[in-house]
Amino acid sequence: MPMEFNMIRSIRETPQALDSALKILKEWDPPEKGFRRVIFIGCGSSYFSSLAGNHVLLKSSIESHAFPASEFMLHYRELAKGALVVASSRSGKTGEVIEAVKVAREKGATIIGVTCNENSKIEEVSDETIAIPNGEEPNIPATKSFSAITLVLQGIALKLLGREEGLNELMAIQQAVERVLARENEYRSIAESLVSRKAFVHLGSGSGYVVALEGALKFRETLGLPNEVFPALEFRHGPVALLRGPEKPQPIVIAPEGSSTGALKRLIDDLASRNAEPLVFTNSDVFENCVRVPWNGSEELAVIPFIVPIQIVSYYLAVLNNLNPDFPEGLVKVVERF
Amino acid sequence: MPMEFNMIRSIRETPQALDSALKILKEWDPPEKGFRRVIFIGCGSSYFSSLAGNHVLLKSSIESHAFPASEFMLHYRELAKGALVVASSRSGKTGEVIEAVKVAREKGATIIGVTCNENSKIEEVSDETIAIPNGEEPNIPATKSFSAITLVLQGIALKLLGREEGLNELMAIQQAVERVLARENEYRSIAESLVSRKAFVHLGSGSGYVVALEGALKFRETLGLPNEVFPALEFRHGPVALLRGPEKPQPIVIAPEGSSTGALKRLIDDLASRNAEPLVFTNSDVFENCVRVPWNGSEELAVIPFIVPIQIVSYYLAVLNNLNPDFPEGLVKVVERF
Repeated sequence: MPMEFNMIRSIRETPQALDSALKILKEWDPPEKGFRRVIFIGCGSSYFSSLAGNHVLLKSSIESHAFPASEFMLHYRELAKGALVVASSRSGKTGEVIEAVKVAREKGATIIGVTCNENSKIEEVSDETIAIPNGEEPNIPATKSFSAITLVLQGIALKLLGREEGLNELMAIQQAVERVLARENEYRSIAESLVSRKAFVHLGSGSGYVVALEGALKFRETLGLPNEVFPALEFRHGPVALLRGPEKPQPIVIAPEGSSTGALKRLIDDLASRNAEPLVFTNSDVFENCVRVPWNGSEELAVIPFIVPIQIVSYYLAVLNNLNPDFPEGLVKVVERF
Repeated sequence: MPMEFNMIRSIRETPQALDSALKILKEWDPPEKGFRRVIFIGCGSSYFSSLAGNHVLLKSSIESHAFPASEFMLHYRELAKGALVVASSRSGKTGEVIEAVKVAREKGATIIGVTCNENSKIEEVSDETIAIPNGEEPNIPATKSFSAITLVLQGIALKLLGREEGLNELMAIQQAVERVLARENEYRSIAESLVSRKAFVHLGSGSGYVVALEGALKFRETLGLPNEVFPALEFRHGPVALLRGPEKPQPIVIAPEGSSTGALKRLIDDLASRNAEPLVFTNSDVFENCVRVPWNGSEELAVIPFIVPIQIVSYYLAVLNNLNPDFPEGLVKVVERF
């Protein structure tokens, strides 16, 4: 029996973190005044949560943007005028996020801070702060905090759209995560099958692209190996050259059932014909030889049910490689200066 | 004297392609009717050109988006209503671009097609087409076509903003590329110093991030090696774990003088302190031990002067590795089906 690290415990605590997030969302109402646009900002995993919220609004034709906090602050701050800025930071004190929020306020934006820590710096600089209990975790790579922040941003997006019934789908996410966790051993065996791979390519479309980005970050953080990420169909516009490289990467395809299923099926068939052996995470029936993800909701909200299996694979890959996933060498938990 | 491939000839022909693009832009006027938003779409290098146009508009607080054509078509098509869609395709027949344009038209968008081929499919489906003479090239990796399309998209953005004087800066780009080409031997020697590296990380901010994306694609296409890309400051939020990996990647930092210079300087000092030996391409005086890029214009329009040196390095890296950069294994010049 190998030693167990905090990261897997945090992953297993995802339902409790989601429960806390849901309780907050049920009570939460969006600011009454109108906004010119919505801007989601964050760093690392919180930037990918930002993309998940942005995805919901863009699909509904609302002007919305997601930026790494640094890029917003350095280049796009003029967009803040009249905007609602939703700023996420697990610690509540990420350097670029705090600075970006200050800049946005000066430009006249309304700020909602989202964090897993009460009484943190982000509370001082935001108009309103959502601090999620049970979201914080001792491990450096974000797991349950990513899911909790993502759920809050998706909830904010749904409420801004006036889609109150969307809360039911958010509750379904929590139930799906319970089913995912019941399959931990299955995902662990996937890790065992990948243990010798030295490079990965993560592909996804829409919400699947968000999962690909965050999944690649988990693999990178816990393994220190190259993990490239592409919007799925972009892979054939150049990056496919990687398949002939000296270290042929393992493709991981995130394929929630939805508008991209047909195109992903053709891409996966193409990859298979190139002997690339794509590993497909899906809840769709059109794929064979795939890893099942027990989610029966929409593509729009598939991020959390799909990231948890990847987190589990990432954890066991690290353990099987004798690496400590809680404290990867060279990383710190909070980046306060930039 | 090693054999010379088409790719380096195409790079050297960039000034002629830019000249053709400039002539078109001088005569071009934006459509008279107003638009709800601007959406740039493309695949591969043309998607990165799209980001360059988007960068100019976002900095000026105009609602603008850039998507891979596939992501727009599969997820965000509702945004097309009342939009101006600028669709780029070197060949004029990229599958996803043509399909995305059809979808956007159905939704009521006005389409400007941008291509390097006259009488191509994109002309049939667009309201107006800009076909750039001297932009097409025989090599698969895009070089002068990328620069020409980028210049046209930047020009469209400037004209939409009513910044007619911006054309002078676009002319300065052409002159800067002449100066870059005069330094071919210097950039070739950079390639010689990198020839043993087996993995790269490309970092940039704002227009530098666009260069990082396209530069990584060049390296990937011509070498088949892992080339990860990050908005510069995001590197410290997890990806820095790569530096401890078995194949320590070579960081390449794209640092045009501008609002991000201070933050990039601190990032580069941090990388140096981790013995990562960052290779910095810059026109700023604050960096030491860097590769000079002869550009004295704005950060906003730095994409073309900065990508040409990277293209040259990419070309010679391939040649030094006995690879044919014109026809990388596994790639095709035009992806017509998806």
